[in-house]
Amino acid sequence: METFECIGARRSVRSYEDREVEEEKLGQVLEAGRLAPSANNRQGWKFVVVRDAELRQRLARAAHGQSFVGQAPVVIAACATETGRVMSCGHPAHLVDTSIAIDHMTLAAREQGLGTCWIGAFEQEEVKRILGVPASATVVGLLPVGYPTSWPSASSRKPLGEVVCYERWQ
Amino acid sequence: METFECIGARRSVRSYEDREVEEEKLGQVLEAGRLAPSANNRQGWKFVVVRDAELRQRLARAAHGQSFVGQAPVVIAACATETGRVMSCGHPAHLVDTSIAIDHMTLAAREQGLGTCWIGAFEQEEVKRILGVPASATVVGLLPVGYPTSWPSASSRKPLGEVVCYERWQ
Repeated sequence: METFECIGARRSVRSYEDREVEEEKLGQVLEAGRLAPSANNRQGWKFVVVRDAELRQRLARAAHGQSFVGQAPVVIAACATETGRVMSCGHPAHLVDTSIAIDHMTLAAREQGLGTCWIGAFEQEEVKRILGVPASATVVGLLPVGYPTSWPSASSRKPLGEVVCYERWQ
Repeated sequence: METFECIGARRSVRSYEDREVEEEKLGQVLEAGRLAPSANNRQGWKFVVVRDAELRQRLARAAHGQSFVGQAPVVIAACATETGRVMSCGHPAHLVDTSIAIDHMTLAAREQGLGTCWIGAFEQEEVKRILGVPASATVVGLLPVGYPTSWPSASSRKPLGEVVCYERWQ
């Protein structure tokens, strides 16, 4: 699938088929994350791949009961391993870097017919406990991965003229 | 270009041809940013597109003198318009959301033969002054866009086994 088409076809999928994700497809998703750029190429991330049904149920509860998190056959917990680095622009590098990696994974998944959904609504400390994530790291996002029961229609977006301006802020 | 291929072919480009970027191609890059997902679909971003040569030179100086920022025919300052929202996982939504939009733009650019480079090394307040970005917003990244003088070779990445683990953190 062409990249621009893939960007337009990605959806936030909140209902998954009871069907395994093939190892090869999952591998390509993870590889897309691995290839992501990062500040100073530090690659300060770790992707915890959860297939175990009980662990997924616990993650769903830690995600405020979003049951589709447990329904998806795979959940990737995308973690930042280094949380102390602040770029000179003032923003923490680990959040930007790990977000890039997750975005890569959502698109590589979509290309292969797999749905995902960015999950930022979860109890950080509880997810860390469930997965044994050390105190020095942080979970940037949970990403359920699976075959959607159907592809949702596109969410609305602001018109381009509202989000783009030229030369100076307007 | 297929999505996975595009992810693998993206590079951080630090040398640009003296050649304009076609409006249509730039439009597709911005459209890719517009289509990005965001927490609660808030789309709290603004993309300031800078073509003016003097402004680009000033941005290059504010980016610690990274001269290629001024050399690229277009620089997109990707700003977050809402900086106060913290997701329940503890991370600020605006950094994650705007990073997704920037990543979409880097890939849509690459598909069209355009190079980009994530710039996080810049003086935040100086860039805001140059572009008139209000105090309530923040510049998440600067993204030069243009035709590369050549495509750099791939940067090294950690092996997959080092960044992926299964079921629990290892």
